[in-house]
Amino acid sequence: MTDLLARHHDAFGKGAPLFYDDPVEVVSGNGVWIDAADGRRYLDLYNNVPCVGHANPRVAAAVAEQVATLNVHSRYLHEGVLAYVERLLGLHHDGIESMIVACTGTEANDVAISTARIATGKTGVIGTDGTYHGNSPIVGSMTRLPAGEARGGFRSIPTPQRFRPPAPGMSDAELLDHHLAALAATIEAMEVEGEGVAALLLCSILANEGLPEPPEGWFEQATAMVRAAGGLIIADEVQSGFGRSGRWWGYETSGFVPDIVTMGKPMGNGVPVAAVAASRDLIERFRERSRYFNTFAASPLQAAAGMAVIDEIVDRGLVEQVAEVGSSMRGSLRELAAEHPAMGDVRGHGLFLGIDWVEPGTTEPDVDGAARVVEAMKAHGMLMGKAGQFGNVLKIRPPIVFEHEHADLMIEAFTEAVVEAGG
Amino acid sequence: MTDLLARHHDAFGKGAPLFYDDPVEVVSGNGVWIDAADGRRYLDLYNNVPCVGHANPRVAAAVAEQVATLNVHSRYLHEGVLAYVERLLGLHHDGIESMIVACTGTEANDVAISTARIATGKTGVIGTDGTYHGNSPIVGSMTRLPAGEARGGFRSIPTPQRFRPPAPGMSDAELLDHHLAALAATIEAMEVEGEGVAALLLCSILANEGLPEPPEGWFEQATAMVRAAGGLIIADEVQSGFGRSGRWWGYETSGFVPDIVTMGKPMGNGVPVAAVAASRDLIERFRERSRYFNTFAASPLQAAAGMAVIDEIVDRGLVEQVAEVGSSMRGSLRELAAEHPAMGDVRGHGLFLGIDWVEPGTTEPDVDGAARVVEAMKAHGMLMGKAGQFGNVLKIRPPIVFEHEHADLMIEAFTEAVVEAGG
Repeated sequence: MTDLLARHHDAFGKGAPLFYDDPVEVVSGNGVWIDAADGRRYLDLYNNVPCVGHANPRVAAAVAEQVATLNVHSRYLHEGVLAYVERLLGLHHDGIESMIVACTGTEANDVAISTARIATGKTGVIGTDGTYHGNSPIVGSMTRLPAGEARGGFRSIPTPQRFRPPAPGMSDAELLDHHLAALAATIEAMEVEGEGVAALLLCSILANEGLPEPPEGWFEQATAMVRAAGGLIIADEVQSGFGRSGRWWGYETSGFVPDIVTMGKPMGNGVPVAAVAASRDLIERFRERSRYFNTFAASPLQAAAGMAVIDEIVDRGLVEQVAEVGSSMRGSLRELAAEHPAMGDVRGHGLFLGIDWVEPGTTEPDVDGAARVVEAMKAHGMLMGKAGQFGNVLKIRPPIVFEHEHADLMIEAFTEAVVEAGG
Repeated sequence: MTDLLARHHDAFGKGAPLFYDDPVEVVSGNGVWIDAADGRRYLDLYNNVPCVGHANPRVAAAVAEQVATLNVHSRYLHEGVLAYVERLLGLHHDGIESMIVACTGTEANDVAISTARIATGKTGVIGTDGTYHGNSPIVGSMTRLPAGEARGGFRSIPTPQRFRPPAPGMSDAELLDHHLAALAATIEAMEVEGEGVAALLLCSILANEGLPEPPEGWFEQATAMVRAAGGLIIADEVQSGFGRSGRWWGYETSGFVPDIVTMGKPMGNGVPVAAVAASRDLIERFRERSRYFNTFAASPLQAAAGMAVIDEIVDRGLVEQVAEVGSSMRGSLRELAAEHPAMGDVRGHGLFLGIDWVEPGTTEPDVDGAARVVEAMKAHGMLMGKAGQFGNVLKIRPPIVFEHEHADLMIEAFTEAVVEAGG
């Protein structure tokens, strides 16, 4: 392992992101399980990309067949590519008519931002102060941008959430007013600067923000305010889409209707593919103004993998399974939290759950404690991660083929890990 | 077909790039051949991504095996990923030590630009006025940026070339002086503006510029001037790499030594993968300053496809084959050009050849004439394209498994197509 880590530092440079002080050497996988080189088998509570399971046989067969048949760019016509794009569009609400395919969520969000700017003639884009939508020089400017600051046409609003209210004892209605007032001020600042509001770009379940619960009505009213200011609503479904939240799309779970949708991570079960979808009018206005073309995108390979993913989700009833298993696991975690005050809050939707790890009896984030839980879970053979605005939210986001028996194993291990981590 | 085209317009929006007025519906491929839905078989003179051939069996088998085993992100360790990156680094000169893997050439060039800016503390990046290095809002600013203009930290120099000298009858030495003076003025402008020169970013064989031949010594002296000004040299090998030019890398063909190399298109024979490579020091300075991470990159899938591509190129001696077949085909095209004055210039390296289509007897680009040749070639069952600063350079860039027999077929068809197109 030491040798492998040294090779990794040589090949990728030190500083290339790695999980754990003693990183896992992965070899193979199967469903929700990953086998490591040291013979250990890990239950995967982390990975959302292999959504229909590691080494999913249907995806593997579809990819194998397509790569052995043809894989070229989309300046030729291809039945499989069209059938896939049509099917994926059909899974969205009626206003989502056409698509631009890309390779990464970052690229999709960059294109979505351009599309909104072209369509509105405005440049300002609003996100939350706890967000991450990608790593390019454009959308990367949104990463955890403090509320009140401006950067590259972007401004942030305070992440709407209930667990750490700005003042103690605020009612839900007061909290809603507070957050809508912050949004109104942000819109006004953009108008005063002459940028105007091109878009509100949100992860539909505020995943990187740590899955906070906004006050009731926030999504509906915030999106209405942005529309009233002439801006478009972009739902980033890169993490929340494809059944993750217990509905097909996170925007259904959160209750708003986007003008533009971006998709990515789970879309091809690991084959790089992402997309931007919107009305045909919006897509065509982008195409008219942009030279954008991605040689690798809208390819037969992406379509084959993507279609197999949809087939698996539909045929195995995974959206319903996610809702049921996730809800049950969240219930068990909430029971556990009642006994362990370090588990300050248990939140989330479907199979994307967050445990806000705090100094007991407070809402003070305990990042080190959360890190101890992650390491303790590794010792129990469970891979999980941390997220959230403060990095203290334990993240449970397994492949969506995760079943009750896996949830039971998780809860059993977690019950011990909480104690081992001093919670 | 009409129905399919209408579906394409619905799914992707009108304006999505398509080749030909009557686009080809592709179904399958094999080596240098593509089979269409209407039963026609096309000789592929265009596609560089499926470099070791459409549906290459070794790549298909490697991809099939890996997708059926495991495919996850690179925050775990993986032997296959490391072995691939080490092998690819070993194909470059000794100064290229570490790598950042990405999904697209655009992304690789964006990262390379950031790396150069971080390392030098300067922001100015120089390209040619006929170039294209990608479609993001960053590197997209370089696209055909007129010399003398500045955009987003970028400035252009006139594309160094011999076919259309700035004044008639210039000697090669005068032409060299002319182009170096333009570069010196650009460097000075950047220093005056306080940007300084972070990098010169060049396709190693000036592919999108139309494969011009710079005056003798230009690459060597231009790169030395940029280094003397404190800038780095970025070789964009997205098109010129992996044997395309008859050497492993285009920078070997053109005779310069880059500090940073970007790679893409042919790297995975169609599996989306790209990379930036440089000294370990440069890569680590980027990692220290950047939050960059690509979930889909440095994956076991990319590594499996990429390793199979290298195996094919090495085991089948494709670099040598490219040099030989390409040189022979270029010779035949030059013989043909002697009889057809519309074929103003025949240029290029290895299996990337360009025919500068002109108003006969002049150097005036004839874009329409070139388009007629492309259509005439399609009628002969041959897929080719156009490129170059003026869009009039016929582009021959087949999969590198292209052999003498295919070159013979191409020359035979082209001999007729030239006449049919009025040349």
